[in-house]
Amino acid sequence: MSLKTIHEIDIVKAPHSKIASVDFDNLIFGNTFTDHMLVCDFKDGAWGKPLIKPYEPFLIDPSAKVFHYGQAIFEGMKAYKDESDDVWLFRPDQNLERFNKSAVRMAMPEVPEDIFLGGLNEILKLEKDWVKKGMGNSLYIRPFMIAFGTGVVAAPSTQYRFMIILSPAKAYYSGEVKVIIAEHYSRAANGGIGAAKAAGNYSAQFYPQKLANEQGFQQIIWTDDATHTKLEEAGTMNVFFRIGDKLMTAPVSERILDGVTRKSIIALAKSMGIAVEERSVLVEELIQGMKDGTLKEIFGAGTAAVVSVIRAFCYQDTTYELPVQDDSFALKLKEKLTNIQYKLEDDPFGWTVKIG
Amino acid sequence: MSLKTIHEIDIVKAPHSKIASVDFDNLIFGNTFTDHMLVCDFKDGAWGKPLIKPYEPFLIDPSAKVFHYGQAIFEGMKAYKDESDDVWLFRPDQNLERFNKSAVRMAMPEVPEDIFLGGLNEILKLEKDWVKKGMGNSLYIRPFMIAFGTGVVAAPSTQYRFMIILSPAKAYYSGEVKVIIAEHYSRAANGGIGAAKAAGNYSAQFYPQKLANEQGFQQIIWTDDATHTKLEEAGTMNVFFRIGDKLMTAPVSERILDGVTRKSIIALAKSMGIAVEERSVLVEELIQGMKDGTLKEIFGAGTAAVVSVIRAFCYQDTTYELPVQDDSFALKLKEKLTNIQYKLEDDPFGWTVKIG
Ligand SMILES: Cc1ncc(COP(=O)(O)O)c(C=O)c1O
Ligand SMILES: Cc1ncc(COP(=O)(O)O)c(C=O)c1O
Repeated sequence: MSLKTIHEIDIVKAPHSKIASVDFDNLIFGNTFTDHMLVCDFKDGAWGKPLIKPYEPFLIDPSAKVFHYGQAIFEGMKAYKDESDDVWLFRPDQNLERFNKSAVRMAMPEVPEDIFLGGLNEILKLEKDWVKKGMGNSLYIRPFMIAFGTGVVAAPSTQYRFMIILSPAKAYYSGEVKVIIAEHYSRAANGGIGAAKAAGNYSAQFYPQKLANEQGFQQIIWTDDATHTKLEEAGTMNVFFRIGDKLMTAPVSERILDGVTRKSIIALAKSMGIAVEERSVLVEELIQGMKDGTLKEIFGAGTAAVVSVIRAFCYQDTTYELPVQDDSFALKLKEKLTNIQYKLEDDPFGWTVKIG
Repeated sequence: MSLKTIHEIDIVKAPHSKIASVDFDNLIFGNTFTDHMLVCDFKDGAWGKPLIKPYEPFLIDPSAKVFHYGQAIFEGMKAYKDESDDVWLFRPDQNLERFNKSAVRMAMPEVPEDIFLGGLNEILKLEKDWVKKGMGNSLYIRPFMIAFGTGVVAAPSTQYRFMIILSPAKAYYSGEVKVIIAEHYSRAANGGIGAAKAAGNYSAQFYPQKLANEQGFQQIIWTDDATHTKLEEAGTMNVFFRIGDKLMTAPVSERILDGVTRKSIIALAKSMGIAVEERSVLVEELIQGMKDGTLKEIFGAGTAAVVSVIRAFCYQDTTYELPVQDDSFALKLKEKLTNIQYKLEDDPFGWTVKIG
């Protein structure tokens, strides 16, 4: 694919760049922002002209519906720089599509492709110096939409603001990842908003996440809320299980986010001759797999974390340490994926899209 | 109870009041705000000094966590004016308690009583002319807290803003209320945030609500997400069923908001000699009750709607019209409740609290 050109956009450049003051070797994920942001407002049933302007706080009414009813969605993407200083996106069409699915589920207007992807192209051209070369370096992209209309009555807004902000990043997780399997708390309901990248899904996890952290676990693997027997996904990653030489991951459903990394990992694994099954994996299969030695790997997959090897999981107060794999599927898949993203290898799937 | 006095507060008065420009006979619920708002910030682990200042938009960073992760909670209360021009609150201690329960579930700091109730007392003294006399008139009170800290990483904020805004109101619903019983969509998961007055719970309902509206129903009665057989609550109301001469309502749980109106209705009904059962009512009991004529009433109960008589419900494409009751529990309970709220009757429970 190539990015749709945007015809109508205003650009107000920042008088000077902050880039010299940023320590790119010591970035905290999601904390540093580039010089500009994109803003586009929806009112009277239509999107206005997008504006790229200096990154700065903005004014909003205390009764704006985003504050009271959480009508807000977002996406998470990354831009990568290759050795020739070209900047690339990875499957941005998938993020646009998912964003607009989230919009429908949250009763918000869809954002047209030229504003979302065309606008992203423009702001990335302006901020290309913020994308650093080298494996692991990227510019994290956060498109989001909030309900801007006012009024403390629980009904959809009629005004919205779409924005794109950009944050230079290193890899998301560092160190060993140990997870706990959810036995009481849940992330999503049947018929709920789990498949949407809706703001409310994330704060709902903060308290159980805090409890998990206090017990020494970095992440929670969520299970279905009705029985807590089916493994679903982690807070910001889909989860893969390798039992024997087969890779398994929960099917996407209305409870699970349809991850771009997840679907890319599935395609890559298949292309590498690894058998993949999209089906509900039960907690008891993990326990059984630990007993008989067939559970070989667990890993998370997501834009921020890329591929994150899980070293141990806790269930019913027992912690199970996973064996270290010489022939790790996770590491092989991660290498393949990042090589494509950083343009170090051919991209037979046509996933990468050049900014320009 | 009486309201805790606040010792430290700053007040900046609006230079002139908008009140003369407001048409109090034609208010749209939640759309008009008084002259002032209360603002109090939490940072470095502590609440600062509250400030009452003119109602106006405020500045916030595009990466504020409220926008991305929906970390936001609120309350809904009302102030009433009696015939002697005194202003009253109804069980405000219950709202404070619930607010702080919501805060814990959303990994947010609790708001101390003197800031929440003491601050509310101060702003209501200032805005007392906005509370109009007469049954049905009230000043709707919206305390809320949002995650003010910045950063696009899914973790709790370290900075928060607590605010109180006020909106003069007439009754919330008018006309006949017909509801549809949820067969696919859900409001809350087991182990989720349904019992918290968290922003994300509300936008999650907008899309199914829109579908219901398109089919001619004003509200949805939510059912449990696992089986859709148990009746839970409506979007902003708890729900009561009268079968024979017994009143039934779902027990509070982690899926259901512990409504102040709900618990007051239960107490009033008991004091009036009506049998009340807090138990899960099944959809099939309603259908059976329609067949054998024992289902006499359904009504919603909540601060905004007070008591809202439900005229019909739809299930599996069949609409069931409820009989009109001469001896309506809903209307009797509503009268009793509002008489207490407006100080037209004794308040044997000590529920009302005077501003001053
Ligand atoms: C809940 C959830 N699951 C999975 C993912 C992974 O999706 P993707 O690979 O598209 O980044 C994310 C986030 O990005 C997420 O928020
Ligand atoms: C989901 C929900 N249920 C029930 C209620 C009723 O609670 P209360 O009577 O405290 O207003 C409300 C709102 O106010 C609500 O938001």
